[in-house]
Amino acid sequence: MEGEALLSRFTVEVLVTPRPGLLDPQGKAIHHALASLGYDTIEDVRVGKAIYLDVAAGSPAEATERVEEACRKLLANPVTEDFRVTAAAGGTETAAGGVR
Amino acid sequence: MEGEALLSRFTVEVLVTPRPGLLDPQGKAIHHALASLGYDTIEDVRVGKAIYLDVAAGSPAEATERVEEACRKLLANPVTEDFRVTAAAGGTETAAGGVR
Repeated sequence: MEGEALLSRFTVEVLVTPRPGLLDPQGKAIHHALASLGYDTIEDVRVGKAIYLDVAAGSPAEATERVEEACRKLLANPVTEDFRVTAAAGGTETAAGGVR
Repeated sequence: MEGEALLSRFTVEVLVTPRPGLLDPQGKAIHHALASLGYDTIEDVRVGKAIYLDVAAGSPAEATERVEEACRKLLANPVTEDFRVTAAAGGTETAAGGVR
């Protein structure tokens, strides 16, 4: 990355959710706990992960593209989970990767 | 709930995230794994929960209000976590609580 123009830092949001129809024991546990607290109008609960990544990139599109690739490789299990990637915020100038 | 008008079913999204500055071991683990896969432009990772609740309520506002109360009581730890509640989708007609 030496000699390259300054990159910006974008926050990318990834929502990983269990696929419809698959068992979600964590959601079931929360559903039961809510019911025993008296929340009987809550009919179903599904639990997934919300992952926020700070990415150094030239544009929000580049940042989300890189994160989508990372989702397919590591963050989500394509058999059991769906994922949704959105550029959440950002655009702070930074030098390339690794600067905190 | 007998004799009451039909309620609609709303999906409410809750994003629970670790507060800034607090240790997030799961995020650190993912950050390291991504770095070892070559994603060196990803500078920070924080991991929280995405919870989807199906709520029977008269309006989206009523559904989110109920879920916010549930967050304060059960879903989020106010000392270590922040939460954000949004009505995600819905409006299917249903009888009151418990109908699937």
